[in-house]
Amino acid sequence: MEKPVKVGLLGLGVVGTGVLEILSDHQNKIEKSIGCPLAVTKALIRPTEDKAAIAEKYDLQLVHELSDIIEDPEIDIVVEVMGRIEPAKTFIAEALKAGKHVVTANKDLLAQHGSELASLAHEQKRNLYYEASVAGGIPILRTIANSLAADDITEVLGIVNGTTNYMLTKMVTEQMSYDVALKQAQELGFAESDPTNDVDGIDAAYKMVILSKFAFGMTITMDQVKVKGIRGLASEDVSMADSLGYTVKLIGSTKKTGDSISAEVGPVLVPNTHPLASIHNEFNAVFVKSSGIGESMYYGPGAGARPTATSIVADLMTIVNKIQLGTLGHRFSEYTQPTKLTAPEESFSKYFLSLEMPDETGQFLQLAEIMANAGVGFEQVVQGKSDGKKARVVVITHQLSETMLATIKKEIAEKTNFDLLASMKVMEG
Amino acid sequence: MEKPVKVGLLGLGVVGTGVLEILSDHQNKIEKSIGCPLAVTKALIRPTEDKAAIAEKYDLQLVHELSDIIEDPEIDIVVEVMGRIEPAKTFIAEALKAGKHVVTANKDLLAQHGSELASLAHEQKRNLYYEASVAGGIPILRTIANSLAADDITEVLGIVNGTTNYMLTKMVTEQMSYDVALKQAQELGFAESDPTNDVDGIDAAYKMVILSKFAFGMTITMDQVKVKGIRGLASEDVSMADSLGYTVKLIGSTKKTGDSISAEVGPVLVPNTHPLASIHNEFNAVFVKSSGIGESMYYGPGAGARPTATSIVADLMTIVNKIQLGTLGHRFSEYTQPTKLTAPEESFSKYFLSLEMPDETGQFLQLAEIMANAGVGFEQVVQGKSDGKKARVVVITHQLSETMLATIKKEIAEKTNFDLLASMKVMEG
Repeated sequence: MEKPVKVGLLGLGVVGTGVLEILSDHQNKIEKSIGCPLAVTKALIRPTEDKAAIAEKYDLQLVHELSDIIEDPEIDIVVEVMGRIEPAKTFIAEALKAGKHVVTANKDLLAQHGSELASLAHEQKRNLYYEASVAGGIPILRTIANSLAADDITEVLGIVNGTTNYMLTKMVTEQMSYDVALKQAQELGFAESDPTNDVDGIDAAYKMVILSKFAFGMTITMDQVKVKGIRGLASEDVSMADSLGYTVKLIGSTKKTGDSISAEVGPVLVPNTHPLASIHNEFNAVFVKSSGIGESMYYGPGAGARPTATSIVADLMTIVNKIQLGTLGHRFSEYTQPTKLTAPEESFSKYFLSLEMPDETGQFLQLAEIMANAGVGFEQVVQGKSDGKKARVVVITHQLSETMLATIKKEIAEKTNFDLLASMKVMEG
Repeated sequence: MEKPVKVGLLGLGVVGTGVLEILSDHQNKIEKSIGCPLAVTKALIRPTEDKAAIAEKYDLQLVHELSDIIEDPEIDIVVEVMGRIEPAKTFIAEALKAGKHVVTANKDLLAQHGSELASLAHEQKRNLYYEASVAGGIPILRTIANSLAADDITEVLGIVNGTTNYMLTKMVTEQMSYDVALKQAQELGFAESDPTNDVDGIDAAYKMVILSKFAFGMTITMDQVKVKGIRGLASEDVSMADSLGYTVKLIGSTKKTGDSISAEVGPVLVPNTHPLASIHNEFNAVFVKSSGIGESMYYGPGAGARPTATSIVADLMTIVNKIQLGTLGHRFSEYTQPTKLTAPEESFSKYFLSLEMPDETGQFLQLAEIMANAGVGFEQVVQGKSDGKKARVVVITHQLSETMLATIKKEIAEKTNFDLLASMKVMEG
């Protein structure tokens, strides 16, 4: 058995502790696989934190200065599990410059500064891995980079935010309102007290930026992802979708049309027969359409200390293998293509439109005329409940472009007394 | 761009042609990824086959002797897509001895002679890959070998035979009988005219031998897998299971208890809320339970020319990377543990028992006594239809060992007038 590879942790919260647990619990298997022990020798914490018990249990040294880790010649790999942009970004850059390999699970950082950090790692001939940044326990990045390297991916559709999937599951199966579902998710620790990043789709958008890079080799920015969350989603629309055979899910997607891509996050009506409709509670899943394999899906926990830590340790093992082979500086995803975004007039989908209109003769004719003028047909129309004054009408359209949808929305606003309560994409079966 | 890596095909049926298609369709992406072109230059066919059109389309030479491929110094990698044991086994061994790397999708061969061939490859310092041998389009072997190397797998449960999953889907959703479902599968080309390997669970058992090696590092033989197929499965039992909230699936499983494993194939009642219950038609899925990640599932097509060929090409690309790095002779799965099988008295499960008993007072008491004597409780009991003479009774038991099940079966046979029509395991939710 060779001498141990030593690791420094930046941060010692639940995920950092999870890394110590996984390394300890699966020690034998890990050693057999990489041919040497893997040991965390130091962890960087804030002076205000008390982590003495953990340090003693796992036999590691607590430090308060980054230099104590990155200037330690014994340490080969640094694991960043602090989260947020700064000081994580500076720390990772410093670690790479000091010749350390880096593993991180920091999706916010990677979505916003991933290219920069990947280039720095490449220049420094060091490895930067971040499997845990997308769908914690699902090895989706490695699968795309390795197994799907022989394939031509056309679309990636993911349930990549556990909080909102938990809430939507409750809204669908227990007819909970949005507010009650959010409160329950917060009580169970699935949602933070400020749920903005989750419910407004920002967390899912970070992941779609990273997935777009792996699936299509294109580097897009957060403001190039169309993002809509589930905040205020009406339970009436959820149950109307249900009665039409669909389950509402917050779907992150990145799709290739010709040589351009379009990435977005939003609530989508998923046909009940589609595998993504069966992903319940806080679980995540990534569904891939490709020319060779056709349809495949990867399912697992999207977060949690042990699943995330397991992905981090898999990255550590990959780096140890590469150190042993002397293959340093390869990017996690080597695939690059010129970045090109799909124009709104080339981006087609079926849509679910939920409208409130005066309960009077001739109203529906107005809607039909607007749709006909835009060149769009109806696939399904359902008249919902009426209070005598207002009627709720739900429409599922045939395929239309984003430009056509914008025209229809404008016409409805200008020419009718309708309220367009919601519009959501409808996934094909 | 470096000079092309050349490949020889053994066999040019649908999968072999699929390899040519994928290499041609995804040529740019593949070249970018591995830094050189990948070209099939020769294919071995039988003299009676006419493949001239394919050879012309893909610019390759047809040969009738193995030596034309393995003695060609230009060829680095041989892809075996002939199927069956011989001559495939001899050909692969000859290719390895001649210094070629080998990719194969041959599950029968790998399940029965995999260790021998892996050792030969290792001795010859050549690489042997076979991702496509289990669940064609699902990269499950690579995922277990790489991403789950940091994890401790406790159980692998798979729907790994598309033919039987198609038949069972029809039996559940359209109440088809076994015979009608088989006939339809044959008409659609999902089942062969002799469906033995599929319906009797043999094909799935091959895959469980390979998965046991990857998940637990243990080498088991086919006769160590307990195999039961779905031949003659009664639609009454399928619908009885359905009414109790379960879907009958042919499940291949390999499970660790302490330091021993137990591998089997058989029809199982899967709770409708379990992700495996939603795997429909000819699709495959492999569900993994592990200490770190918890639960994950990998879903995709189990067969088909293009999905299988995509996995083969991913293997080819892995080998090219290894040739470039000079890391030759590593096994696809390096994980090895002493092989130990779980004793029947330590292998526990809930069971579904379907019985026919005389429709007379006191009969059920007899069953209750047998169960009580064996120390087994009922979880659910359903009295089905009666024709006045015979009543059909279905029982779901609490956990019992295989030894206890054998005792109960013996007692029923010796002490009652019941017919035990079926017994199937029941998966926990």
